[in-house]
Amino acid sequence: MPLTGVERYGHGGDRWTAGEMFGRGADAFVDFSANINPLGPPDSVVRVLQEALEDKGAPVLARYPDPRARSLKRALANRYGVPEECLMIGNGGAELIDLVNAAVRPSRVGATAPSFAEYEASARKRGQEIVYLPTGEKEGFQPEPEALSKWIRSVDLAYLGHPNNPTGLTVPYGQLLAAAEEAAVAGTVLVVDEAFLDFVSDGEARSLLSRLADFPTTLLLRSMTKFYALPGLRLGWGAAHPDWIRRIEELQIPWSVNGLAQIAGEAALSDGAFENVTRRWLAVERCFMMERLRELPGALLVPGEVNYFLLKLEAPPLGGTGASRRLQQALGERGILIRDCSTYPGLDDAYIRVAVRSREENVHLLQKLGEVLGKGEIF
Amino acid sequence: MPLTGVERYGHGGDRWTAGEMFGRGADAFVDFSANINPLGPPDSVVRVLQEALEDKGAPVLARYPDPRARSLKRALANRYGVPEECLMIGNGGAELIDLVNAAVRPSRVGATAPSFAEYEASARKRGQEIVYLPTGEKEGFQPEPEALSKWIRSVDLAYLGHPNNPTGLTVPYGQLLAAAEEAAVAGTVLVVDEAFLDFVSDGEARSLLSRLADFPTTLLLRSMTKFYALPGLRLGWGAAHPDWIRRIEELQIPWSVNGLAQIAGEAALSDGAFENVTRRWLAVERCFMMERLRELPGALLVPGEVNYFLLKLEAPPLGGTGASRRLQQALGERGILIRDCSTYPGLDDAYIRVAVRSREENVHLLQKLGEVLGKGEIF
Repeated sequence: MPLTGVERYGHGGDRWTAGEMFGRGADAFVDFSANINPLGPPDSVVRVLQEALEDKGAPVLARYPDPRARSLKRALANRYGVPEECLMIGNGGAELIDLVNAAVRPSRVGATAPSFAEYEASARKRGQEIVYLPTGEKEGFQPEPEALSKWIRSVDLAYLGHPNNPTGLTVPYGQLLAAAEEAAVAGTVLVVDEAFLDFVSDGEARSLLSRLADFPTTLLLRSMTKFYALPGLRLGWGAAHPDWIRRIEELQIPWSVNGLAQIAGEAALSDGAFENVTRRWLAVERCFMMERLRELPGALLVPGEVNYFLLKLEAPPLGGTGASRRLQQALGERGILIRDCSTYPGLDDAYIRVAVRSREENVHLLQKLGEVLGKGEIF
Repeated sequence: MPLTGVERYGHGGDRWTAGEMFGRGADAFVDFSANINPLGPPDSVVRVLQEALEDKGAPVLARYPDPRARSLKRALANRYGVPEECLMIGNGGAELIDLVNAAVRPSRVGATAPSFAEYEASARKRGQEIVYLPTGEKEGFQPEPEALSKWIRSVDLAYLGHPNNPTGLTVPYGQLLAAAEEAAVAGTVLVVDEAFLDFVSDGEARSLLSRLADFPTTLLLRSMTKFYALPGLRLGWGAAHPDWIRRIEELQIPWSVNGLAQIAGEAALSDGAFENVTRRWLAVERCFMMERLRELPGALLVPGEVNYFLLKLEAPPLGGTGASRRLQQALGERGILIRDCSTYPGLDDAYIRVAVRSREENVHLLQKLGEVLGKGEIF
């Protein structure tokens, strides 16, 4: 069934479709539907791009980008202590998801429900079977260990969001290790999608990145578009055994990662100040939002660990058929974009997702949310 | 067999690999191996990008790009008189070549020999059979009409470069029409790759773009990275029946075309002055290069119609085993990059390709070419 809502192209952050639907310009929204760091992009990154454009003849545009992004790989290798031959760079994380599927050629693809839509999309367009591992509200949206093992054994390629999107929940480290071991034994390729791990305060300690040599069938994906606020530029990376990297890069189109993204990535990695400021902002603002969202009448908050929250509008009086879509509509008309989560498998039209933004914007969202929910006009 | 030369990643313009091979920085080359307009990128495009980066919070970076590039499609539709629903935008032409293959799912893919390496690459990575239509030096690198028809009937997906790369030759309009008709009758998908057509003075009149409605199995590909000198940014487009566009866009990864490329494309399309200056430059400089390259001792020039020339180093004394590679090496050490064409199917190590650049750079190339060839050191 073709989608018709703001998420008709599969995702949040689509100001253009929202603009068409809500009769506003694409610029006329505060966007809580995309989980982008509102403090970014870092000034250092913008400056590097500006300087590159000021170079005579703008060689960053006029020359082909390095087809292997060698300089950016070196920077990532230094930063994360991973050999360069274990790294791949993508035109956003979405390209890497698609390339992993192309390299693995699975018959059965596993994803938890709910999770990021691209796992299913990349499988569906190749006619592969999707096997969902349900993680319900009652279980706190966490997979049950035995069911997780069984599910990994039952598929060729399995995705775990760490933290997961849209729940914002991480996989406990022990469970991650067990999953990687199970995958190695079963010959299943396990992809741990760490696109939002940068936002978890002790994220690096909870990643398998330093343990990848032990798990030849486990691949990690990262994104630089969320934490550094560069979704317009597209930049993701991944880490895995060199054999995987070679297979995947053979399938990648040439010059997939544009030249500006490559230099922006390098600049971002060396901006420790931006990282610190972001961590301080998030530590404060996450708690503020969590407390206030909890106070909404009838709303149930999933205690995510990152820069967005999944929220359930409980019926009655807040839930009910089409509630998420109607709330999105009501807020959209007020210039606020939220993510209607009814398109996620495993969720229904009681669920929405909102990003954490600046204090001023968060207060604005909370006020409008209260206004709309208070009036009961969405039900 | 893995490639080991400058073209190890399949293409020219790889300063990074050349730098490693010739012991120079990636910046220390005049690049005749990539066919990029040396007058670009247009100032208007650079300015639009600079202004976008100066916007508070750099929304062009911080926001997801329009997943359907609607504004750029409108601009293309206006410019070329093609309905928006017949247009697709790609992360460079290379992405569109790959997507066409994914949408057609051919068993047998046809390409002329020699032609752009990506036709074969996109087929090979899916394990499809490649059927080459040889076009030899004796036939002026033009396919023979009957052989062309037979070849179209024998494959599921056929590529014609118009103009072709690396020969620079266009397909005569009558032959193009006949090929599209043959493809429609046979149910073969015909892709006319017009990546360099902008450089042909009466190019638009020689395109099937305005006739696409008559040929439902014909797709056209264009590039904005050559004429507008934006290979670092990545931008291509294509035109076809809306059914093809839908199928292809369903297979495309989300946000494949970055936000800077989208606004750059729009700015480029409205810069008529840049277009005129480029046409004037090319009219003069093509002839200059053609005359001078012809004068090289023993060199045979293919009379290409665009901004690059295919050149044969005839033996003896100029040809011989490894001549193209050795000439590339000798010039590379002098800071000049040329394309070794021995990696093109249908060509051998007597062939090189050089782009047309500014007068000063062309004179420099001709001088160094004469020096190296005169010394006979490459044989």
